[in-house]
Amino acid sequence: MSNLKIDSPRLMSRIEALGAIGATPEGGVRRLALSDEDRAARDQIVAWMRSAGLRVEVDRIGNIFGARAGTEGSAPIMTGSHIDSVANGGKLDGSYGVLAGIEVVETLNDAGVETTRPIVVCAFTNEEGVRFQPDMLGSLVYAGGLGVEDALNTSDGDGVLLGDELARIGYAGDREIGAIQPHAFVEVHIEQGPVLEAEATSIGAVENLQGISWTGIDITGQANHAGTTPMRLRHDAGYCAGEISSYVREITRQLGGQQVGTVGVIDLEPGLISVIPAKATITVDLRNTDNERLRQAEKLFVEFIEKLAASEGVEIKTARLARFDPVRFDDAIAERIENNAARLGLSCRRMTSGAGHDAQMMARLCPAAMIFVPSVGGISHNPAEHTNSDDLNAGANVLLHTLLDLAAA
Amino acid sequence: MSNLKIDSPRLMSRIEALGAIGATPEGGVRRLALSDEDRAARDQIVAWMRSAGLRVEVDRIGNIFGARAGTEGSAPIMTGSHIDSVANGGKLDGSYGVLAGIEVVETLNDAGVETTRPIVVCAFTNEEGVRFQPDMLGSLVYAGGLGVEDALNTSDGDGVLLGDELARIGYAGDREIGAIQPHAFVEVHIEQGPVLEAEATSIGAVENLQGISWTGIDITGQANHAGTTPMRLRHDAGYCAGEISSYVREITRQLGGQQVGTVGVIDLEPGLISVIPAKATITVDLRNTDNERLRQAEKLFVEFIEKLAASEGVEIKTARLARFDPVRFDDAIAERIENNAARLGLSCRRMTSGAGHDAQMMARLCPAAMIFVPSVGGISHNPAEHTNSDDLNAGANVLLHTLLDLAAA
Repeated sequence: MSNLKIDSPRLMSRIEALGAIGATPEGGVRRLALSDEDRAARDQIVAWMRSAGLRVEVDRIGNIFGARAGTEGSAPIMTGSHIDSVANGGKLDGSYGVLAGIEVVETLNDAGVETTRPIVVCAFTNEEGVRFQPDMLGSLVYAGGLGVEDALNTSDGDGVLLGDELARIGYAGDREIGAIQPHAFVEVHIEQGPVLEAEATSIGAVENLQGISWTGIDITGQANHAGTTPMRLRHDAGYCAGEISSYVREITRQLGGQQVGTVGVIDLEPGLISVIPAKATITVDLRNTDNERLRQAEKLFVEFIEKLAASEGVEIKTARLARFDPVRFDDAIAERIENNAARLGLSCRRMTSGAGHDAQMMARLCPAAMIFVPSVGGISHNPAEHTNSDDLNAGANVLLHTLLDLAAA
Repeated sequence: MSNLKIDSPRLMSRIEALGAIGATPEGGVRRLALSDEDRAARDQIVAWMRSAGLRVEVDRIGNIFGARAGTEGSAPIMTGSHIDSVANGGKLDGSYGVLAGIEVVETLNDAGVETTRPIVVCAFTNEEGVRFQPDMLGSLVYAGGLGVEDALNTSDGDGVLLGDELARIGYAGDREIGAIQPHAFVEVHIEQGPVLEAEATSIGAVENLQGISWTGIDITGQANHAGTTPMRLRHDAGYCAGEISSYVREITRQLGGQQVGTVGVIDLEPGLISVIPAKATITVDLRNTDNERLRQAEKLFVEFIEKLAASEGVEIKTARLARFDPVRFDDAIAERIENNAARLGLSCRRMTSGAGHDAQMMARLCPAAMIFVPSVGGISHNPAEHTNSDDLNAGANVLLHTLLDLAAA
């Protein structure tokens, strides 16, 4: 059983087949949550689950569960991810994790392997959060972080309710939320970052997930002529935007370690070469795996903008756009992932997830961890998202053996 | 004669009347060079010049000259400005200088004052440079900085030639360029900056004009996930834009004195909160009255972006968008302006023009200087452009006595 391997051509052909649902001209995927494309992809997943002998159930928020019985009726090991995409995403983000889970079951079936605990493969509703907010909605509801009624009453940008769309596409299930109490949860996913590729490493044993702090900032200064206004009389919103961008980098230098910081948006008004900007709109994204240090970063940032506003004579308003605490995954599962990678002859490193995943919600319910595989160029949420098939196989094989370990206990 | 004053109601009513030509709903003026509105305004100016007894001539580039004879046929004293506007400008920018010149002539006529030298009031073509580039085109051609044929062949954004438009509106004159050789040139203009208002000073004796260095900058980095990309692996074009904005301020601190610097444009791509910017487009505006120090600022800037590009691993391309040397006006005329302000009981300070004006072109031909009056809020190129009537009168009176001084010599 320690030599068991997944069927690579089967996994690859299913990744391609699922990627054809909602395929875009650029070679990407557009499969917004609860759209017709999402329905078609769900129907395909359910069909593959049934053909793999899984008992399929759908809960009230549309999460799909396919269960393979164990020799004992104990709490199951769960695996899975999501099949919705961003507006122009790739074939792998989410889908890989669901299909790898089904592939593990097929492999166990083909080899006639029974496990002590049941294995459940799941596909969570609306992970991307593009059409309905918040993101990771299905797993958040499952973990008890958001009431199911509130979630069903969430409306998209056109005022359409999530619950109505769920009914329309036939996935308003009847299973109560959280009916299946998992013993452990493991999700395999593409890294969506450059670390594994840069270090030529096949497997990431994800031990934690960054906390996220998003701030929107509006700076109001005064437009004036770039030539005739002496420096001492300026209230330059654009200069303040630049200083904030520089200081965000300075925060990452001061705190070091896992602290990252990004200013992704800077909009200036009026945006003319010879006019001092009157207004600036910017965003700040701070992340750390250590909540205390993330709070320290936020504190440094607030102190800086207060001083800056006073010295430049501008008004700076901040709005918290998002705040998630870091998540610590289960160390024992991360170690199992490392051990299985080593046994399979695969290079592996412990790592942090910088993106949000359903596994972080499931970590509220049970021990959880993730397996990452390299993203070519670190690219995702993009039609160019790609992972080499050797790495996709490697990740699925590590998943297989990690689920076997956990399901044996 | 030392008590002579201009007729304030007449000047104010003409400012209002001219401002009605091309008036916008917001209370501003849209009178692009060589448009129908420009024609109507030119016709009005010519009518007022004629009614003031001026002999009107138009040269080949459409500059209008109204001459009042002197007791001797010596080189005339010239004054004037322009009557074209930006797309949504105010009533005063340019127009005030032309109307104040005509008002001086009316005042001399009413008082029966003769001057030794002739006085010529002029309105130069296409000062704003909105429809046809470069700006200050009419005075540039007059001063020999651009050939008249080249200027006539300049086309606007729709491919219409300046020469054809000049003929269409009836202002393709026959006087040769530079036919009138001035003895001195004085232009009165609104400050378009906050200095006079901030210091509660009525009159600016403009002794020089800043040199201008405009650079366009394209930064190419690499888009990546704001969470998953470690700081050491980033090539963040937005961070570089912020650093450049901060460093432009640092240059002004290092050089001090008259050095000003502005980053008016920052555009980031893709411009998303959680994506490291792949591209940034920014502009840098550096100005100084001292060309040597302006060159020093440019050198500091180039050294900085070279280091920045290397340290962040981004490509930074720069393009020179404009470069004008500083202009030193005539000290003796600036002193006459100061003396006349003092005699009239008006507060006055020497100052620098941060904007370009026709006077800088005329300074190539003869001693020249400018008189500034306060701009409320420092605002111009805007319907809200405003100067209190007391200040407009004060400026016209200083012009009157300065022209009298110069025309007596």
